[in-house]
Amino acid sequence: MVHMEASSNLGSSAGRKHVVIVGAGFGGLWCAQGLRPSKLKGADLEITIVDQHNYHLFQPLLYQVATAALSPADIAAPIRNIVRGQQNARVLLDEVIGVDRRAKRVQLASGDTLDYDRLVLATGVRHAYFGHDEWAEFAPGLKTIDDATRIRRHVLLAFEQAEVERDPARRAALLTFAVVGAGPTGVEMAGAIAELARHAIVGDFRTIQPSSARIMLLEAGPRALPAFRDSLSQEAARSLATLGVELRTGAKVEAIDAESLTINGERVPCRTTIWAAGVRASPAASWLGVAGDRNGRVPVNDHLHPDGIDDVYVIGDTAAVLAPDGSFVPGIAPAAKQMGSWVAREIAAWATGGPAPWPFHYKHQGSLATIGRKSAVVDFGRMHFSGFIAWVLWCVVHVFFLIGFRNRLVVAWNWLWQYLTFQRGARLITGNDRQDS
Amino acid sequence: MVHMEASSNLGSSAGRKHVVIVGAGFGGLWCAQGLRPSKLKGADLEITIVDQHNYHLFQPLLYQVATAALSPADIAAPIRNIVRGQQNARVLLDEVIGVDRRAKRVQLASGDTLDYDRLVLATGVRHAYFGHDEWAEFAPGLKTIDDATRIRRHVLLAFEQAEVERDPARRAALLTFAVVGAGPTGVEMAGAIAELARHAIVGDFRTIQPSSARIMLLEAGPRALPAFRDSLSQEAARSLATLGVELRTGAKVEAIDAESLTINGERVPCRTTIWAAGVRASPAASWLGVAGDRNGRVPVNDHLHPDGIDDVYVIGDTAAVLAPDGSFVPGIAPAAKQMGSWVAREIAAWATGGPAPWPFHYKHQGSLATIGRKSAVVDFGRMHFSGFIAWVLWCVVHVFFLIGFRNRLVVAWNWLWQYLTFQRGARLITGNDRQDS
Repeated sequence: MVHMEASSNLGSSAGRKHVVIVGAGFGGLWCAQGLRPSKLKGADLEITIVDQHNYHLFQPLLYQVATAALSPADIAAPIRNIVRGQQNARVLLDEVIGVDRRAKRVQLASGDTLDYDRLVLATGVRHAYFGHDEWAEFAPGLKTIDDATRIRRHVLLAFEQAEVERDPARRAALLTFAVVGAGPTGVEMAGAIAELARHAIVGDFRTIQPSSARIMLLEAGPRALPAFRDSLSQEAARSLATLGVELRTGAKVEAIDAESLTINGERVPCRTTIWAAGVRASPAASWLGVAGDRNGRVPVNDHLHPDGIDDVYVIGDTAAVLAPDGSFVPGIAPAAKQMGSWVAREIAAWATGGPAPWPFHYKHQGSLATIGRKSAVVDFGRMHFSGFIAWVLWCVVHVFFLIGFRNRLVVAWNWLWQYLTFQRGARLITGNDRQDS
Repeated sequence: MVHMEASSNLGSSAGRKHVVIVGAGFGGLWCAQGLRPSKLKGADLEITIVDQHNYHLFQPLLYQVATAALSPADIAAPIRNIVRGQQNARVLLDEVIGVDRRAKRVQLASGDTLDYDRLVLATGVRHAYFGHDEWAEFAPGLKTIDDATRIRRHVLLAFEQAEVERDPARRAALLTFAVVGAGPTGVEMAGAIAELARHAIVGDFRTIQPSSARIMLLEAGPRALPAFRDSLSQEAARSLATLGVELRTGAKVEAIDAESLTINGERVPCRTTIWAAGVRASPAASWLGVAGDRNGRVPVNDHLHPDGIDDVYVIGDTAAVLAPDGSFVPGIAPAAKQMGSWVAREIAAWATGGPAPWPFHYKHQGSLATIGRKSAVVDFGRMHFSGFIAWVLWCVVHVFFLIGFRNRLVVAWNWLWQYLTFQRGARLITGNDRQDS
């Protein structure tokens, strides 16, 4: 990404301990902020944050960018700006391509290298197609801003194309949208597409009725939102039905191409398929030369080290961490933040010679998912509920956790506006229109 | 853009008169809105608006997208949504590639055709490089949202690359920004880059001082803002100097490549050049088979027809219209709106059999340009002033003319936030990062 005449070692200044954090998602950023000078009792530590993007992305709201409700900048903040006041931290826009554990050195795509004393890998996940990588072209997943604007373009173009299509079968295929995977992202995406078709654009076309669009949510398992208790899954299914989303459980997707997808042997003409079914960890395991689990995650112990590699931490979605109940810690933002903060405390203890923290212990705070306008499900363990109050809570929590006061206000304003008017603020077809059409 | 099995004629319903408007900028949109049923006294008219984008763009603020102050969606609104209530208007996302005057038929890139009774061409301009098309690659212009996000990416990446560049000469070239052309767009762009470097990102880097960036504004003529009176040009030059923008008049750009530009024989290493120097009309003249003027504009008479083609109107930046004082009507939004409204009145008169309006007569309402934060120049003829009050007026006027209540509030909020904090809300490097780096 960054071109240089000759490669340089961008290690720390002479004598200072150097912490390299790869990835500025929730895990990496919380770790960096936990290592600000006020937490270090005078210990001299240099922190380098490497990310392939210049922004921290609030991924839980990315589906709202993909469905034209928010602008990319509403849910992203420049990493440099977040840590601008933290003088011991610097930010590099670059991509990690390997780790030399013996030399304690990170290899960057630009050709530069970074020597570390402690390395924190918080590089997240990408979508995975269970051995069907050829589906990626027809069923984009949703992990980056470019993914989101690509999906937005595709969804909006489908309505445009349907408007001038005279053949009824082709028009029906253009107005059929499939979301594969009924976890929170899939449920939220299907609900948002339904809202778009049934409300936001409903009066804007002359030939088609956008509200006649067919929105399918396909889940291989027996129910939507499998991470939630059964009663909330049922509640979500009812809300989806109200929105006119066709939830199909036990639906095995067997083929996807530009024109259709095949579900349990049945071929359904469908011009827009969105993938929310599975993820695969970044290549951290192969950088470290350890065996990943079946999703490519790096198994770590209760100090968030891969066994035997005590100067490297793996956190967030990239790590496979056992929770106290024997399950794995889920790949959600609060878990990544807890790991990032915990690693910061352990590194601070190492740097200052203070007492090490207790081993990492994940505390599950709850699960939330929204289903379109005015409906959500909330599962806080003993407390769990759904409906309008859950939806308000969902909005408040998401605005509260957004980084940057400006973003919070803009998002809150956009939501209020949409709630009152049913309109969407970011219905732009940008980028190479021809590419996806 | 829109693929169809066989090409269709998308002409009007049987017997209804059909107006085709090409381009949904200020001219086309004002024309369409002037033909809403309430203006037609019962006359039955069908209107088709064709645009290659799905949004109307408020171009006067595009430079703020290019400099990370606003998001694309803040200054764009879906065309369909703007005319959703106007039942006699429909919108096609398509591109015009030709006009058959004899058959009264428009040829679209999709293969479809549109028969018209009246045709309004409002297709605007693109940047032009005075016979140096090879400069387009190195000195992007600013006419579309994709142009703006490309420039934003390039400008933000230049700072990122400078941060890791050790060679002082290369670092200096990365921190040199040239804007070619000191009309309002060039002045506003140079001022906005200066604000970005001197304020918004100033504390975010560790190696470089963004405030040391060199920002050059190059003008071939003798002064900045040649369309304004001389005293305001001088005021603008002073404001630019205060911002640290190096204004060079009489500067003839002789060569541009990825690494430098050559001005009056001097080669200046410079990694970011932005083109604001010249425009060329869309190919409307060649579609009609008439001779364009030297900027490709279609000469039209005081009924906005090319001579002898009475069923076609050419309006906005694409038209060369003589103003009462013998000069040409400037290529600005108010002029396009006046032409669009005038054509709507004439078409309504034709459709209803009412009296034709007086010939088109351009009223110049004034010229405004802003120079960074808190400074602007305003020229209303007898009334003309500059400074803070001019800047407040500039803000009010631009927010007022933005289409869509939501956009107005979001832009006003963003500006207030930036004014108070010096921060930018849309500092995202998106798209293909590698392409431009």
